[in-house]
Amino acid sequence: MSHQEKKLVKEQNIQESLYREACEVIPGGVSRNTVFHKPHPYYAAHAAGCYVTDVDGVKRIDFANNMAALIHGHAHPAIVNAVIEQLQKGTAYTMATEAELRFAQLLCNRIESLEKVRFTNSGTEAVMAMMKASRAFTGRPKIAKSEGAYHGTYDFAEVSQTSNPSNWGDINKPNSVALVDGTPQGVLDDMIIFPFNDIEKTLSILDEHADHIAAVMIDPVPHRVGLVPGNAEFIEALYLWTRKNGSLLIFDEVVTLRVNYGGAQARYKVRPDLTAMGKIIGGGFPVGAFGGRTEVMKVLDPRADRIQFPHSGTFSANPITTTAGRVAMELFDEEAVIKLNALTQTAIDQIKQAINVADVPVSITGAGSMFRIHLNAIPPKTYREAFQPKEINALINELLDHLYHEGKIMMINTCACMFSTVITQKEVDTLSEAMLNGFRFIKPKLEKIPQ
Amino acid sequence: MSHQEKKLVKEQNIQESLYREACEVIPGGVSRNTVFHKPHPYYAAHAAGCYVTDVDGVKRIDFANNMAALIHGHAHPAIVNAVIEQLQKGTAYTMATEAELRFAQLLCNRIESLEKVRFTNSGTEAVMAMMKASRAFTGRPKIAKSEGAYHGTYDFAEVSQTSNPSNWGDINKPNSVALVDGTPQGVLDDMIIFPFNDIEKTLSILDEHADHIAAVMIDPVPHRVGLVPGNAEFIEALYLWTRKNGSLLIFDEVVTLRVNYGGAQARYKVRPDLTAMGKIIGGGFPVGAFGGRTEVMKVLDPRADRIQFPHSGTFSANPITTTAGRVAMELFDEEAVIKLNALTQTAIDQIKQAINVADVPVSITGAGSMFRIHLNAIPPKTYREAFQPKEINALINELLDHLYHEGKIMMINTCACMFSTVITQKEVDTLSEAMLNGFRFIKPKLEKIPQ
Repeated sequence: MSHQEKKLVKEQNIQESLYREACEVIPGGVSRNTVFHKPHPYYAAHAAGCYVTDVDGVKRIDFANNMAALIHGHAHPAIVNAVIEQLQKGTAYTMATEAELRFAQLLCNRIESLEKVRFTNSGTEAVMAMMKASRAFTGRPKIAKSEGAYHGTYDFAEVSQTSNPSNWGDINKPNSVALVDGTPQGVLDDMIIFPFNDIEKTLSILDEHADHIAAVMIDPVPHRVGLVPGNAEFIEALYLWTRKNGSLLIFDEVVTLRVNYGGAQARYKVRPDLTAMGKIIGGGFPVGAFGGRTEVMKVLDPRADRIQFPHSGTFSANPITTTAGRVAMELFDEEAVIKLNALTQTAIDQIKQAINVADVPVSITGAGSMFRIHLNAIPPKTYREAFQPKEINALINELLDHLYHEGKIMMINTCACMFSTVITQKEVDTLSEAMLNGFRFIKPKLEKIPQ
Repeated sequence: MSHQEKKLVKEQNIQESLYREACEVIPGGVSRNTVFHKPHPYYAAHAAGCYVTDVDGVKRIDFANNMAALIHGHAHPAIVNAVIEQLQKGTAYTMATEAELRFAQLLCNRIESLEKVRFTNSGTEAVMAMMKASRAFTGRPKIAKSEGAYHGTYDFAEVSQTSNPSNWGDINKPNSVALVDGTPQGVLDDMIIFPFNDIEKTLSILDEHADHIAAVMIDPVPHRVGLVPGNAEFIEALYLWTRKNGSLLIFDEVVTLRVNYGGAQARYKVRPDLTAMGKIIGGGFPVGAFGGRTEVMKVLDPRADRIQFPHSGTFSANPITTTAGRVAMELFDEEAVIKLNALTQTAIDQIKQAINVADVPVSITGAGSMFRIHLNAIPPKTYREAFQPKEINALINELLDHLYHEGKIMMINTCACMFSTVITQKEVDTLSEAMLNGFRFIKPKLEKIPQ
């Protein structure tokens, strides 16, 4: 064995041995399926800026940023220092803090549609609370969402998240498909599924349930639907429909808040009634938040004689998360957003060149500081077009493995990049070169798959 | 005005002014109803050990410990140091870490019923995942819970959490009562409500839905039901019923894990199939976990051809929480648990003496390092007995305010104490003396309320 081969065997052994131990105490050896990987997940040792070093000492550029949660990469000094200061004063009290107030003010000042806000511990909790607030405000049970959209792990929000050709049904009236076995039928019945960006079909589906719809929920750039932004006409049509039918338009901006200074919603003429947030607003710590119009958020007000939506949470609005989040969002100011989006566009342009040079049937979708690569010459416009058959999925995994091992590049397992402000042109060049090599690596197999 | 009076006015002004600002951006001015208080919530500035200092510089003994989440009080040096070390290596990656593995091992070694475990970001998420896992494993939709039990903010888990004489119905078949306006009927229909610690009534209710019940969920010392431990006979009867009827026995130990070294469940002869955890296992950081029998937890295994219960979470199992949690639980070893429970018993004994000396109709319930004070000579045995009419509730608030302002004592708003390991006999003496004064303060009003 060469030195390099010996090193590879050793590396495999450390991670494999951690994984073997993990399988003894965690189902499948991973506490989040996101990090599941065959033959074993990867184990991080430490990270700084846009570089993560694994337990074998191998350093890689991080374009995944904990599933889009780290807008300034890892261990940003300003965040670390602010957290150390708070840490020594305590991490949580059975009392309010000025930290939560200042962060709430920042979010309400920044996001035009936010008049009032509340914090939770995750995007899942934020979306759940937003859906519950919609029901409480309207007194109606049903929520409409687009097929394929990921909105966290609340079972109502999970409906039709991964529907497939065998169960998704007629596009004119997509089925409500359970994600988890044993999901109660009532959960499926109370979720209305529509095709993203298709005004005619969507309005016709909504009309059928008009009197029972509490809210129409939209991720404005839904990752799993193909990372295609919502058309202005589509979003405006939904807005008008909700005004006409006494329901709410609610946005899940857990992932997409990064897209513009004021969130992905800033590019539309209309504003959602409620918005759920998470990911980058925690500065690297568990976080969620939801907010919107004062009139709607009033359902949460504990000063009422009868509270319509009692809401609490042991760690919600804790001063570590709200301090880290505030510092992170202050650093992610208008200039930083513009700069980051421009660098991401440069990366997209360079990868498009790599696609041309490699001459592969590949396309890119995205918005702001996010993009996703599709092994298809025509970029998908809908969930059904973005849906990957098994053989394409396998090839994406081969590409990701090639990038990870040969290119020293970490991406999200859908073949997506979520940029951070600490990435520079140097890392973008490494990325596009690795992509070119990756495209060439999968090209022979890709050409055999009918488009 | 005296110096003391002037100081009081100044104090009120700072907190009132923060609250006024908060009301502009947060519904009701609080992000957690737990900390809501009239005329304004209290704002914490910093804390160390068992003392919290508010923004006016007033120091109080903390017997609330962020709703039972801080088993070692505030800013424990061992936890602070471990977190600072991890902080500088990053707070979260799109990769697994050794930190989550070591913590999973600790929990599985410690809690006999835990063969496999997974992490979440809160107790709410842990209970939700445990309920979903039960449905996935059994293929059944319904979950049974005891009336009045708090299990977090998942809407299914919230059913009948605050039912009252106007809507709770016949005790032989308690109504499923929505907590939040607009809760879908399907949610209510899929929750079966039984009276805690009543074997005969509970089994009869369960029998009616036998074929559809995925799990019977129990908090073994349910705080809102009266903080009365589950009888061994009751728990064993539920266990046997679930064995006979193909369903699961699941425990919510988010609050109660502190009761014994192996959780509140350690005192029973039977073991739950699944357990949800949270609070103290996060070492002061947002946390949840659920686990149990390998056979059941297998529904989460991503290695399966078809995953029955796909489960992830951006911040779940993050290395800050799992490091802080591991250190906290290592410090809370068998000796520490025994010592803490003994000190809590001393406090209970001293408060019982205060009750005698003050000659008030007051009782105490609890287990391990938790107790709750009831303004009733006979300790409640059920949720309906523990239910507080408005006038009793108002008097509890007067007692709590008296303890807070005069005694410099912080308790949970149900009049409960959740001890931490950094409390000493000195603080217990202060508590029992403050209690004596408090009882004397409310005695004239209490005696006017018919028992």
